[in-house]
Amino acid sequence: CISANFAKMSAEVADLPSGPLDIYRNAASFSWKDMLRFIEGDEIVAFKVTFQINNPLWFHLVKQLFRYDLLPDYEFYGNPWKYVILNDCLGMYDWGMSAKFFLNKGMFRNSIERSGSQRHLKYLEDIDNMTVSFFGCFALTELSHGSNTRAMRTTATYDPSAQEFVINSPDFEAAKFWVGNLGKTATHAIVFAQLYTPDQVCHGLHSFIVPVRDPKTLLALPGVLVGDMGKKVGQNGLDNGFAMFHNVRIPRENLLNSTGEVTPDGRYVTPYKVGRFGASLGALSGGRVSIIRMALVNLKQALTIAIRFSGTRRQFGPKDTEEVPVIEYQLQQWRLIPYLAAAYALEHFSKTFYMNFVEFQVGLLQRDKSERQSELGREIHAMACAGKPLGSWTAQRGIQECREACGGHGYLAMNRLGDLRNDNDPNCTYEGDNNVLLQQTSSYLLSWLHSKPPGRIESPLHTVDFLNDFHQILESKFTASTEEACMDSAVSVAAYKWLVCFLLDGSYIRLQQQRSMGKDEFEARNNSQVYYCHSLSMAYIELTCLQRFDELTRAEDTPADLRAVLRKLCGLYGLWLTALCSSAGGYLSGRQPAEMIQKAILSLCAQLKNDSVALVDVLAPPDFILNSPIGYADGQLYKNLWSTVLQGPEVLQRPSWWKEFCSHKPHVGSLQAKL
Amino acid sequence: CISANFAKMSAEVADLPSGPLDIYRNAASFSWKDMLRFIEGDEIVAFKVTFQINNPLWFHLVKQLFRYDLLPDYEFYGNPWKYVILNDCLGMYDWGMSAKFFLNKGMFRNSIERSGSQRHLKYLEDIDNMTVSFFGCFALTELSHGSNTRAMRTTATYDPSAQEFVINSPDFEAAKFWVGNLGKTATHAIVFAQLYTPDQVCHGLHSFIVPVRDPKTLLALPGVLVGDMGKKVGQNGLDNGFAMFHNVRIPRENLLNSTGEVTPDGRYVTPYKVGRFGASLGALSGGRVSIIRMALVNLKQALTIAIRFSGTRRQFGPKDTEEVPVIEYQLQQWRLIPYLAAAYALEHFSKTFYMNFVEFQVGLLQRDKSERQSELGREIHAMACAGKPLGSWTAQRGIQECREACGGHGYLAMNRLGDLRNDNDPNCTYEGDNNVLLQQTSSYLLSWLHSKPPGRIESPLHTVDFLNDFHQILESKFTASTEEACMDSAVSVAAYKWLVCFLLDGSYIRLQQQRSMGKDEFEARNNSQVYYCHSLSMAYIELTCLQRFDELTRAEDTPADLRAVLRKLCGLYGLWLTALCSSAGGYLSGRQPAEMIQKAILSLCAQLKNDSVALVDVLAPPDFILNSPIGYADGQLYKNLWSTVLQGPEVLQRPSWWKEFCSHKPHVGSLQAKL
Repeated sequence: CISANFAKMSAEVADLPSGPLDIYRNAASFSWKDMLRFIEGDEIVAFKVTFQINNPLWFHLVKQLFRYDLLPDYEFYGNPWKYVILNDCLGMYDWGMSAKFFLNKGMFRNSIERSGSQRHLKYLEDIDNMTVSFFGCFALTELSHGSNTRAMRTTATYDPSAQEFVINSPDFEAAKFWVGNLGKTATHAIVFAQLYTPDQVCHGLHSFIVPVRDPKTLLALPGVLVGDMGKKVGQNGLDNGFAMFHNVRIPRENLLNSTGEVTPDGRYVTPYKVGRFGASLGALSGGRVSIIRMALVNLKQALTIAIRFSGTRRQFGPKDTEEVPVIEYQLQQWRLIPYLAAAYALEHFSKTFYMNFVEFQVGLLQRDKSERQSELGREIHAMACAGKPLGSWTAQRGIQECREACGGHGYLAMNRLGDLRNDNDPNCTYEGDNNVLLQQTSSYLLSWLHSKPPGRIESPLHTVDFLNDFHQILESKFTASTEEACMDSAVSVAAYKWLVCFLLDGSYIRLQQQRSMGKDEFEARNNSQVYYCHSLSMAYIELTCLQRFDELTRAEDTPADLRAVLRKLCGLYGLWLTALCSSAGGYLSGRQPAEMIQKAILSLCAQLKNDSVALVDVLAPPDFILNSPIGYADGQLYKNLWSTVLQGPEVLQRPSWWKEFCSHKPHVGSLQAKL
Repeated sequence: CISANFAKMSAEVADLPSGPLDIYRNAASFSWKDMLRFIEGDEIVAFKVTFQINNPLWFHLVKQLFRYDLLPDYEFYGNPWKYVILNDCLGMYDWGMSAKFFLNKGMFRNSIERSGSQRHLKYLEDIDNMTVSFFGCFALTELSHGSNTRAMRTTATYDPSAQEFVINSPDFEAAKFWVGNLGKTATHAIVFAQLYTPDQVCHGLHSFIVPVRDPKTLLALPGVLVGDMGKKVGQNGLDNGFAMFHNVRIPRENLLNSTGEVTPDGRYVTPYKVGRFGASLGALSGGRVSIIRMALVNLKQALTIAIRFSGTRRQFGPKDTEEVPVIEYQLQQWRLIPYLAAAYALEHFSKTFYMNFVEFQVGLLQRDKSERQSELGREIHAMACAGKPLGSWTAQRGIQECREACGGHGYLAMNRLGDLRNDNDPNCTYEGDNNVLLQQTSSYLLSWLHSKPPGRIESPLHTVDFLNDFHQILESKFTASTEEACMDSAVSVAAYKWLVCFLLDGSYIRLQQQRSMGKDEFEARNNSQVYYCHSLSMAYIELTCLQRFDELTRAEDTPADLRAVLRKLCGLYGLWLTALCSSAGGYLSGRQPAEMIQKAILSLCAQLKNDSVALVDVLAPPDFILNSPIGYADGQLYKNLWSTVLQGPEVLQRPSWWKEFCSHKPHVGSLQAKL
């Protein structure tokens, strides 16, 4: 019985401090603790509480994380979602630290596990024990190539006389670049290089374990020019680095040989006949799946700050003597609450999608060669390639709106909205530029359009099954006739299905037109992105995210007392998306539906206004992690801000250069002749 | 003769270095130097060249600016535009420095000149001579009040026995906050406070000159708690500060008394009968007019970086062996080139609008009390209140797009896109939050709708004259029937006139509905912003900006060889705006016009692609000011980036904590029991 479980657990979630936000907390239509337990689940609530206590010392060193061993294997296998929660919690405190930890323990380790073989097992042990002689990084990107991974120019030439590979950067433009952990700390890198056998034949991109620094001294090894790239716009806790290799020799065994091997005498052999590069497609989705979540974590924190601020900041009012909290303004609601709805939608999407990915990973580990496993890989790849853009752009825009919605105080660094935006920004770029990735998704969708007889489309996660009704959907029209009717998320789900079909149809026609004009495939695809394939991919993932959220709000397991607010959030999210895309032709006709949608959006914002503080209470980390005086749980906006300002370094001290300022009076115009 | 002048001047603009960008420079349809001279004018080109030389020493101290006296009064009166260019050039190097200079020499000085009287003239001399005993700031905003200026709570109570005002902050929430220059350097502040006479009557907000620090020691004066607010998201070159006053006494004469005076015996007298606060409305526009330009300067630099990058960064291609510059991709063109068109439109708008403002200021100085002068003030206020949102948001979104369009390299701090975005961000907030300001503009527009008989609307700057045809325009329809026809900016001007009328009509109806539902004026206005008044104000200023640009491209003075490219930019800017707003009902009907507009946008982007590098050459500052290796004029993207990375501090050095890293091996799980 759910209620009984809830009652049992309720002692474990601490109350939030009382304060000016009580007005809105008391006005909420639901219990935020019930929502927290519903969204997170009891086990995760407990897991987070164990280490989100106020002990910043934990976070000083990545090595401490090993000492705490927060997520031993047995816990991970019991509930793989904890892996994401661990990253959430570390990242909320500092993405740089979290990245250092996961790049070594996750990306570096998993690459060896996945691409290596028996002979590389010792490395895995070294990583798991965090032997200092082994701290790793993943070196793919080069100075002049990022998205076009196949064009990497670093070479690994096999020398059979020494049974070694010679790693070489042909010039500085082929230096490895942007490699996380490489700037100051990595001792070993997984380097992607073009593999050459002694017969001068190139066998394409392979990965190699290359020592770059002496583990005893952290000094660069001979032949390796390795250094730190300097300051980034954000995420400066991570040391991104570069490396240029001058004929660096490594043992033959350092080739990660799951997709290709070089024999001691220099022959290239491969277990796969085709699709060697494609074999790692699924594995590459892992980073993107994580990024969706990382972006969401940033958005959730920004919303917590902006909505608590809006519930306590008062400005203007019907009378000069009485000012109202700015969340009471329709405009402020409309700026923030749709992003809150998006955060709830993405919360459910990121979790269910991660579990889909875990299922796929289990299949990989079990060497599942079935058609379904392969289709699952394609579908997850398509979803991740659009999910990352959806998550990162929603967060980037939402954080900017939160920053502006907090006015000047939102611009003060200590309130953290700048850092959240700056730290979120690279989510739009790494693991594939958003705009480039979206091409992968549209290709997947287009592949369904004519490849199968109608009525037989079924994907493992069912995200494209509705295409069976492609023609009927294309003929459908918007039928909601009242504002209230629009608020049901079924209306926007239907609108979005139409939109995906409309854009799929348009994209196909556009591509055909380009081909018939004699454009080659490269150009035809490039000229079909704007307004077509690009919009198609976004609409598909928005539909998927919306649909999953819609299903959650209707599921039997969803507690009755939370359902109302979840239905409103889902309705708002759907209409907000629909309004953003309503310019596409035909489905909505005339002014009436557009105005009805607008009214329904404003009405849902107003209805959710009194729930908004409690809704961010569910998403919020503890204050010491949130680290934003205007967003603390007690709502003592000015007191917290003022105290923190006065704690600043040298806040009341005169500047060290005061004498120079006071004594050297400039002679106006004295230097003008020197111009 | 224009051509002769051009020929005469052509020696004075230095050639740009040859390199990979030559391909696009040679492909340009026009001479960038001709465009530069046309946009800037010979005098300004020469003015910029005199001090944009590579001498960073200039910029170390604001005091140096006084020594150079870059813009003596006689030069300013000869060409007031130079005032803006000076701010442009200083700000491109560092907005913090520029702000320190102009807050003292501009805002502080002008406030005394405007709000003071004969007895304050000595202060003006002190400022002009940059006497160190006098460095000023403007203290209006308080911790708990920003937009609602009338709600400021600092008090100034007159004590006739001492002939002094007593300045007091009732509590910390009334501390002055966000005051530029106050953090570390200001000796005097203009403090806005509620003026109380001895009879306990409050006479509203007035401004006072209040000494805050001893000019000989820079130590805080007794009773003044003054300090620095700490780090901001950007613009950290400026010391924003706070001050709390504990019964601080100042002489009676320190009241800036142009709008109200207190006699020695404590009686309040005022030269105005009504509208005292309104009298400063026009003057307050100055900051907003400047901000439009500041935002544009940021956008121009970001575009220079992103477009030069896109002309040299190659990624993918029709064949594996041949990669193409990323500007060749339609998607990249569509992401960047409309912002380039917006920059050209805003360049002309910011200049002509500044000259309108100068005309208004001249009227103020000449004490022009005419109806026209008053109407000019209202119109400029309305334009500035929407112009600042247009400029700052266009720049904020454009810079973000530029950051993303440069991929990972755009995220490296040295390439400056992060700083540009972070420094531009407060333009959305200060001098009035964008969303709050837009209400002023819609009120102005609504005031025209029913206040005058039709056919008689004429504003000094003619931005609302088209409302004479309100009803005809509302009946009009989109009539362009080919893609080519859409490219003529007349088409989007007509569409935008319709849009303004449509939104004006809708806003009026919405307000009336709210009133008839019994809402008070406060709530009726608040509930009419989203989709109505807010959109109306934006549409009005976009139309104004578009129309002025359209007129420029058709003007006789515009050189024939530049006209073609300017017409394309204007056509693109108009269609881009139109496409963004095309969801509004009725004017465009069916799919065909929307698709035609999309095709025309893509076609104009493609046509402008070969001009885009030359177009940013016109906008670009010298490399040492641009300070972004991926955006330098020689287009040696990788060489410049690599050299700059290797110049970084300690780039190749191991970290100072290497021993700790290498020797203290963590014992995995050793701390787990302590959780």
